[in-house]
Amino acid sequence: MTETVPTVGIVMGSDSDWPFMQDAATALKEFGVPYEADVVSAHRMPHEMIAYGSEAADRGLKAIIAGAGGAAHLPGMLASVTPLPVIGVPVPLKYLDGMDSLLSIVQMPAGVPVATVAVGAARNAGLLAVRMLAAHDADLRAKMTEFQEDLKAEAQAKGERLRR
Amino acid sequence: MTETVPTVGIVMGSDSDWPFMQDAATALKEFGVPYEADVVSAHRMPHEMIAYGSEAADRGLKAIIAGAGGAAHLPGMLASVTPLPVIGVPVPLKYLDGMDSLLSIVQMPAGVPVATVAVGAARNAGLLAVRMLAAHDADLRAKMTEFQEDLKAEAQAKGERLRR
Amino acid sequence: MTETVPTVGIVMGSDSDWPFMQDAATALKEFGVPYEADVVSAHRMPHEMIAYGSEAADRGLKAIIAGAGGAAHLPGMLASVTPLPVIGVPVPLKYLDGMDSLLSIVQMPAGVPVATVAVGAARNAGLLAVRMLAAHDADLRAKMTEFQEDLKAEAQAKGERLRR
Amino acid sequence: MTETVPTVGIVMGSDSDWPFMQDAATALKEFGVPYEADVVSAHRMPHEMIAYGSEAADRGLKAIIAGAGGAAHLPGMLASVTPLPVIGVPVPLKYLDGMDSLLSIVQMPAGVPVATVAVGAARNAGLLAVRMLAAHDADLRAKMTEFQEDLKAEAQAKGERLRR
Amino acid sequence: MTETVPTVGIVMGSDSDWPFMQDAATALKEFGVPYEADVVSAHRMPHEMIAYGSEAADRGLKAIIAGAGGAAHLPGMLASVTPLPVIGVPVPLKYLDGMDSLLSIVQMPAGVPVATVAVGAARNAGLLAVRMLAAHDADLRAKMTEFQEDLKAEAQAKGERLRR
Amino acid sequence: MTETVPTVGIVMGSDSDWPFMQDAATALKEFGVPYEADVVSAHRMPHEMIAYGSEAADRGLKAIIAGAGGAAHLPGMLASVTPLPVIGVPVPLKYLDGMDSLLSIVQMPAGVPVATVAVGAARNAGLLAVRMLAAHDADLRAKMTEFQEDLKAEAQAKGERLRR
Amino acid sequence: MTETVPTVGIVMGSDSDWPFMQDAATALKEFGVPYEADVVSAHRMPHEMIAYGSEAADRGLKAIIAGAGGAAHLPGMLASVTPLPVIGVPVPLKYLDGMDSLLSIVQMPAGVPVATVAVGAARNAGLLAVRMLAAHDADLRAKMTEFQEDLKAEAQAKGERLRR
Amino acid sequence: MTETVPTVGIVMGSDSDWPFMQDAATALKEFGVPYEADVVSAHRMPHEMIAYGSEAADRGLKAIIAGAGGAAHLPGMLASVTPLPVIGVPVPLKYLDGMDSLLSIVQMPAGVPVATVAVGAARNAGLLAVRMLAAHDADLRAKMTEFQEDLKAEAQAKGERLRR
Repeated sequence: MTETVPTVGIVMGSDSDWPFMQDAATALKEFGVPYEADVVSAHRMPHEMIAYGSEAADRGLKAIIAGAGGAAHLPGMLASVTPLPVIGVPVPLKYLDGMDSLLSIVQMPAGVPVATVAVGAARNAGLLAVRMLAAHDADLRAKMTEFQEDLKAEAQAKGERLRR
Repeated sequence: MTETVPTVGIVMGSDSDWPFMQDAATALKEFGVPYEADVVSAHRMPHEMIAYGSEAADRGLKAIIAGAGGAAHLPGMLASVTPLPVIGVPVPLKYLDGMDSLLSIVQMPAGVPVATVAVGAARNAGLLAVRMLAAHDADLRAKMTEFQEDLKAEAQAKGERLRR
Repeated sequence: MTETVPTVGIVMGSDSDWPFMQDAATALKEFGVPYEADVVSAHRMPHEMIAYGSEAADRGLKAIIAGAGGAAHLPGMLASVTPLPVIGVPVPLKYLDGMDSLLSIVQMPAGVPVATVAVGAARNAGLLAVRMLAAHDADLRAKMTEFQEDLKAEAQAKGERLRR
Repeated sequence: MTETVPTVGIVMGSDSDWPFMQDAATALKEFGVPYEADVVSAHRMPHEMIAYGSEAADRGLKAIIAGAGGAAHLPGMLASVTPLPVIGVPVPLKYLDGMDSLLSIVQMPAGVPVATVAVGAARNAGLLAVRMLAAHDADLRAKMTEFQEDLKAEAQAKGERLRR
Repeated sequence: MTETVPTVGIVMGSDSDWPFMQDAATALKEFGVPYEADVVSAHRMPHEMIAYGSEAADRGLKAIIAGAGGAAHLPGMLASVTPLPVIGVPVPLKYLDGMDSLLSIVQMPAGVPVATVAVGAARNAGLLAVRMLAAHDADLRAKMTEFQEDLKAEAQAKGERLRR
Repeated sequence: MTETVPTVGIVMGSDSDWPFMQDAATALKEFGVPYEADVVSAHRMPHEMIAYGSEAADRGLKAIIAGAGGAAHLPGMLASVTPLPVIGVPVPLKYLDGMDSLLSIVQMPAGVPVATVAVGAARNAGLLAVRMLAAHDADLRAKMTEFQEDLKAEAQAKGERLRR
Repeated sequence: MTETVPTVGIVMGSDSDWPFMQDAATALKEFGVPYEADVVSAHRMPHEMIAYGSEAADRGLKAIIAGAGGAAHLPGMLASVTPLPVIGVPVPLKYLDGMDSLLSIVQMPAGVPVATVAVGAARNAGLLAVRMLAAHDADLRAKMTEFQEDLKAEAQAKGERLRR
Repeated sequence: MTETVPTVGIVMGSDSDWPFMQDAATALKEFGVPYEADVVSAHRMPHEMIAYGSEAADRGLKAIIAGAGGAAHLPGMLASVTPLPVIGVPVPLKYLDGMDSLLSIVQMPAGVPVATVAVGAARNAGLLAVRMLAAHDADLRAKMTEFQEDLKAEAQAKGERLRR
């Protein structure tokens, strides 16, 4: 974790989701975006969860990344108490391949959106947060463009190898 | 609504769910169970929702029926702040036939169960609440047994008509 | 199994479901709720199943927990012959991830509700039964509230560890 | 209904399923197979349902056609109390397009099969019963072969029209 | 394989389906029903498949059991060229858990039914064939009733063990 | 229908599929590709269906478009008896939104591919046949390129109108 | 459309999506966020689509909202050529209830996220864009908080009416 | 890879798809069809992907095989910039069994078809390309017919073994 004031909060219902969610942290680190990570369970600590969301903007966060599985209520509940964009990561559980997590996160009612990424796609959640920040930060935007160039170069190198 | 202290709370995220949810009220009325009905939105009034759940047991409620659609968080969030049994009714929205509502309600994590009924089955939610009460109330249990006898008689009469 | 008169019956179609279903028993034991466990197969011993359900209330049971997989008929059939609340646990089989079990249990017709919990969620079935009893038992309700506090404390401790 | 002893029983949980299920009766009538139709609800008249299934073989029935929707337990429960082949018709309800009905009927455990036809396919249930009888009745088999020839002729005539 | 004239034909698209399909053979053997097993691929040997179906009744078969996976066309194609009842077994492939196999087999058009059993349920296919025969054979019907009694006894013994 | 020797065969199981399938014919007509349309039912006229497929290449057809719904066996069966590319159109039926048709057509076993298009996408089936021909016909390829330019021009005009 | 430089681009594959997508525009208008709307089809004008995405950031856009249905490639393709956050709206088509659109948009590979909202939820796409901007604009954030208060007040008024 | 001018292009988004996609190459090799294989990522190298598709026909390719997983945009995007037939292979990812890949590839809008094969069916993609070429090449068509005869012979041999 960085020592500066965090810009992005990464939260999850249990530390058992951390193996998935730490990819979000890694992505943020790659772009030098300070973040914090915490367990904030919608179902086990609802008052603290409400408090976390309610105070997030005033504490300086610019986006919240929330991972949850099954009847995944954390992203949506946070979105209901913060004006910040909330990014939801559907964590796949033992059954149903994350389809329950996906629908529980993405199908939010009018008025309270959650920016949902793919099942298990915590890295993309981190990158999406970077894009949100980069829209207002030319340096970060340049880094994202460079990152996309790198992705291209890697893909091209793979093609090279495949062609011999 | 009855004038006595309500035993069951029927809540939903919007009064647009009332056409579905009033079947729960009707069922309770048929059994003489006093109830209250209210709009308690997880996403639009999260603090009030938390308060509703937290105070439910002390106000004398014995069960809560909560209807919700899409990313349906109301039943699960209420279950997280009350020790009472919460009955969840998956309300079908315009798309996906209520499958999103069903999974968002039923797939709760260990520790916080929601008693889920069929998609759109508010009447059964009411009857399930009656059964919960009837387990501790011989009169009500007798009424439920009688109700089941009536269901049988109706079904038998239908068979009669079908056979000529 | 406890020596006092059981308050909750835990039944399943085969003892091969016991690895799943014993989590319900554990939950009940944690709360000091006396229970019984039995194999009552809807498809292999239908008369005994009907008898089990018909006599459950008179034997003093306050709720029945029934686990079943695939074309899971046990919870619904029991619900049709008892006035007690029946809690259905969708047991996942080798294929389809329990989606068949879930739909076969939850989609009950009007008049005969089953309180359905998540796929494989036998522990939550036990906790739901405790909640039903707790609504009529202040001591048990206090225990459930305490249990919820413990869940919170654990989640907070996990957050602690995650934050360092 | 015919006046001779019925060979096939057509049952359903409610006469509201009759609009679907009468196509089974029509198919049987076309082949001169005597049948009976009745309302036998698994959930509303479980004892009568068990009795119906238990006595079916002794009453001379050779097959039972059972239509049911949602948590469709009728075909499987009848199969558990009769040695006769039971044909299940998944009746589509208002939501989920009959997928719940299909899975609840077809996914039977080892030992107790149900011969399942397509969602809403009561006519095919009737024709399947005819095939079962025709395997032991040369005249009926000849009729079925003729019926298949007629289907071909109709299809060919349609092709004729399409080609001009 | 028995030496008498086979009464039931068990066919599949490839011998790689045999590990699934032999459960059907075992069930028939338990009831003393003579059968034959063969590879008859709808997609790899269509003419032979058509021939197999067309001649089945005249060869003395009373029912055909056909297992197939994915775009499972074998059961339905056989049903289109025989007046006999065809029992379809959805064989699960590497992806989709047999849902494609199930729908490809069960959703037959009006006129050409396939008696579909559960995903991977070859044993039940065998038992269903036995029931079809038993409807016309008192001895076999007595055996099936006895078999059902045995299932009950086993289930009861499991309950015994579970209760201690 | 054109008077020249047809290059593409459009077939379907019933003329009730024609409202869907004629979009394929229209597309072919737009590109001046001669075609024939016929009813060739896999389930109602299996021998004729086999004959149609077996003779298609020798009759000069270069591709076959086959529409089918439910347990849709026509495209796959044709593919098993012709070396030509077969294009499958999943026709949506009353229930399941064509998901059964799609899986029954696309999930073909190794060795026998079907070129599947979207649910109900007969027009795209026609255009896919044109592309197959255009790969070997410079004029047709030029027309397809022009067609794609027209699609672009239309889309641009729509953008124009939307921007005002 | 506003006259100032647009901050958000709303694009769709066809003006037939406009009835859905204009809800995004309305939401932006309510918050005084300048936007532009255009038809940018991934499949019909791929070069223009690539150009639109590539130039978006330099033209001053801070976010792109893209609606698409079926094999919905527009949001993901735009995300691959811009460093800006792209919000994807799954537009439901005639079949499959938007499930194809949802999966085609949300299941993006690592490196290229799309912020996906609910099926048909164009209004929420607009609100999500506002939140992204509001994280960097105290006034807008205050407006969003106020908007959330209004949602609450409306919900409370509905509860009022329901309670009488 | 062959040294002659390639007739078929096999492309994929990453070389991690090669284990799946090389089955397409093997099939082409068996028929002596020259091919090329390359990494062409829709999301990581969009400009190159557009270029690849735009130039394919002029370079002499007659068909493109494109494999992709998840939000699989490669086949459809290539189809939008080439007049050639594009064959899409849904690559299954870690979750959802390739259902997302399938829908993202097959559900293309009117005007831009993709010839979709089964989930993971790269071999069939190769065979489908051969069929497209064989329709215009009598030798290749003879080989395909011979190949189909071989499939039959293999299936018959399997039957032989199964029958003893």
